[in-house]
Amino acid sequence: MNQWKARIENNRTDWMAKYFRLLSFASISTEADFSSSVIDCANWLEQELKGLGFNVEQWHPINGHPILFATYSKAGKEKPTLLIYNHYDVQPVDPVEAWDTPPFSPSLRNGEVYARGAQDNKGQLFYVLESLKLLIEETGTLPINIKLCIEGEEEIGSPSLNTLLMEKKDALKADYLAIVDLGMRQPQVPSLTLGIRGIVTLDVHVQGSAVDLHSGSHGGLAANPNQALIALLASLHDQDGRVTIPGFYDDIVELTPQEKEVISFHFDPSAYEKESGAKPVGGEKEYLPLERAWLRPTLEINGISGGYTGQGFKTVIPAHAHAKLSCRLVANQDPKKIGQLVANYLMQHSPQGVHISAVVHSGSGKSIKVSPHSTVVKAFSKAFDTVFGNSCEYIYEGASIPITAALAEVSGAETILLGLGLITDHIHAPNEHFGVDRLEKGMLVMAQAIVNLSEV
Amino acid sequence: MNQWKARIENNRTDWMAKYFRLLSFASISTEADFSSSVIDCANWLEQELKGLGFNVEQWHPINGHPILFATYSKAGKEKPTLLIYNHYDVQPVDPVEAWDTPPFSPSLRNGEVYARGAQDNKGQLFYVLESLKLLIEETGTLPINIKLCIEGEEEIGSPSLNTLLMEKKDALKADYLAIVDLGMRQPQVPSLTLGIRGIVTLDVHVQGSAVDLHSGSHGGLAANPNQALIALLASLHDQDGRVTIPGFYDDIVELTPQEKEVISFHFDPSAYEKESGAKPVGGEKEYLPLERAWLRPTLEINGISGGYTGQGFKTVIPAHAHAKLSCRLVANQDPKKIGQLVANYLMQHSPQGVHISAVVHSGSGKSIKVSPHSTVVKAFSKAFDTVFGNSCEYIYEGASIPITAALAEVSGAETILLGLGLITDHIHAPNEHFGVDRLEKGMLVMAQAIVNLSEV
Repeated sequence: MNQWKARIENNRTDWMAKYFRLLSFASISTEADFSSSVIDCANWLEQELKGLGFNVEQWHPINGHPILFATYSKAGKEKPTLLIYNHYDVQPVDPVEAWDTPPFSPSLRNGEVYARGAQDNKGQLFYVLESLKLLIEETGTLPINIKLCIEGEEEIGSPSLNTLLMEKKDALKADYLAIVDLGMRQPQVPSLTLGIRGIVTLDVHVQGSAVDLHSGSHGGLAANPNQALIALLASLHDQDGRVTIPGFYDDIVELTPQEKEVISFHFDPSAYEKESGAKPVGGEKEYLPLERAWLRPTLEINGISGGYTGQGFKTVIPAHAHAKLSCRLVANQDPKKIGQLVANYLMQHSPQGVHISAVVHSGSGKSIKVSPHSTVVKAFSKAFDTVFGNSCEYIYEGASIPITAALAEVSGAETILLGLGLITDHIHAPNEHFGVDRLEKGMLVMAQAIVNLSEV
Repeated sequence: MNQWKARIENNRTDWMAKYFRLLSFASISTEADFSSSVIDCANWLEQELKGLGFNVEQWHPINGHPILFATYSKAGKEKPTLLIYNHYDVQPVDPVEAWDTPPFSPSLRNGEVYARGAQDNKGQLFYVLESLKLLIEETGTLPINIKLCIEGEEEIGSPSLNTLLMEKKDALKADYLAIVDLGMRQPQVPSLTLGIRGIVTLDVHVQGSAVDLHSGSHGGLAANPNQALIALLASLHDQDGRVTIPGFYDDIVELTPQEKEVISFHFDPSAYEKESGAKPVGGEKEYLPLERAWLRPTLEINGISGGYTGQGFKTVIPAHAHAKLSCRLVANQDPKKIGQLVANYLMQHSPQGVHISAVVHSGSGKSIKVSPHSTVVKAFSKAFDTVFGNSCEYIYEGASIPITAALAEVSGAETILLGLGLITDHIHAPNEHFGVDRLEKGMLVMAQAIVNLSEV
């Protein structure tokens, strides 16, 4: 371990430069304008992996972003195979004016690197790659077989990887699967994540007249799509924060008392408010804060727009209004079923005088739950203990990695969810950042866990 | 009249070119980027008016757009003075992609001219100017004294003219005031408007966290400003379309049965739907359609925005959300009082976990009501009868011309509200247009009314 630390320390200038290079690609998967940056990023990663001695394939889905699949199989058949999942695509950067430094020009300030993707997920991908480099440089090889699946569409729900899973079933077979896209609750206390929520997203369109109308001549007369949209959306939650759509909660399988027992539900409202800037008053009033964030489904309004919203004023009744909704889902809720349930409800409850259409997006994913007693959880738990000098706490995560459940199934692997993210990293938001100390700890944890897995 | 028609016919190429030139100025008052086009338009009008023999002043308010004030006083003191109000500023053009031809490149198709401002109000301003030119060319002078007040801030609520009114009280004194910014209900049946609604507008800002949050990690936990905004806005109307804010309707003075009797309330829902593309289901259920549009106040949501609304999807809980609201007001409602009532209600009913701020804009205006029995109404009514061969109907208008009430008071004039707009003109919307036949009729009506006023 000390030898590893010395090597990381001595090479810091080199790997920081490489990390900055990775962050400089504007690999925004959700906006078509950035597709060449996505491809450039994939090609750069391919060269890096080849440099480490990996056998690398790029899977090129139709109309999708390339998936990097890389293998290192020198450990032989008697050693287990670990499949590691990361993604190299990032979220959009708007509002870009809220960034203190440009999102694709990484900037190091007080030990934190600021850039879009600094944490989610290029930072976490980067320490995985460096841990492999570390082991190869130290020992000339890797002690177990490693497969890497690094996709470019996580932020849009992994449509291509989802489509390719069955075709690539054999390639993806593994004993263990590590999803390295999660976080921990405090900088000094490592976490392993026993479950994440699923997700399904929808677009809602409210159509009124064919063109915008003057709100003086038509006000009080014409149906107003903005009014229809807000009335419809407001009807989706009751006073206690519960979703009112019949059937929304029907399929949930609650955690057993034994399953709940190992989870750390401690929550400090004032610390949360300080870290996130938000008051923890969302969700269903009858549940604890972390039950609401981890174990309960949500229906959130991610975007609304309608009419004139620019400078000054424009007295219109808009022709149409829009919303983007997402549901986070928990155990046994089927994303497609819930998505359609919400869409149908919206269309069936159209306010008078407007036409509602609601479309469920394809990039959905189920929730996942893992056992704290598996081999892979123990190996990583031990590695975290060694590196941090503190025991892991077991947590859940409210965010989704839509591909996880399907990847776990196809690979046939024991799954583990981990990462060194913190709630203060501002992922998906302006000024996303990640700590250099966590990059280094991530390298050590991954290397140690791989060694641990070679010894079971 | 026939001689007038011949002159209009013979000069059509010339005046159409001049009309197109007027429409080519992008004089959008609400967007700061266009202020030089506003000034260019004012300067062009000044030259035109000087060419007609008018004495022209530009009133330059601080931080405002110039107001053109022009006088032609050769009729002498024994003849009355008519003050005519128009505006040369126009609404923004977005969504610009919905225009079939560029908004500031006028296009003539099937007898209609398409451009921003083609009707509101450059078209109506233009036939006023041409009617004066016509009379001057025919007789060498004008039979009464004319004052023109042509402002550049009608679409933002006339803040500068409002401020200048008291200072310019003497200049604005007149016997009659014609507000030429209205419409009629059918192309062949002229209308005189006996009243218009007032207006007050507000901006609403909902602040949650300092930055956008990930809707997975924070969903069910953080307060969502989009959710808060829609819940708050939805609470402003009840099931019957009534505004729920206590006191909103308190100050209304209803029309007397005698006042209602002369108004033409006939409404054809299917014709309305065909013309506007909207279903006439807005407003308070207990009133007739045209009572709702003319004689009842409204609270409309003109714009809403919050979170990610672009291509694809972004799973955020936004830091903030916004709305733009406007109220149309009727007899005896004070705009400032109602605006503050709404703002206070919003701020006092803030959903948990967010901060609401609501700001009332300064560009408000009272409603106005005129008598059908005045000298000026009779003179214009007769002119309309002569030109159209059909009697005028008396209507109200739901739209507002915020300066009207104050201008009527300061000028001390008998007021008349008129115009040749049609509901199908798409004012404030893409593909605004105005008919060449109505331009010509407008010239004749204005010229005839001026002659009629010289004979009373």
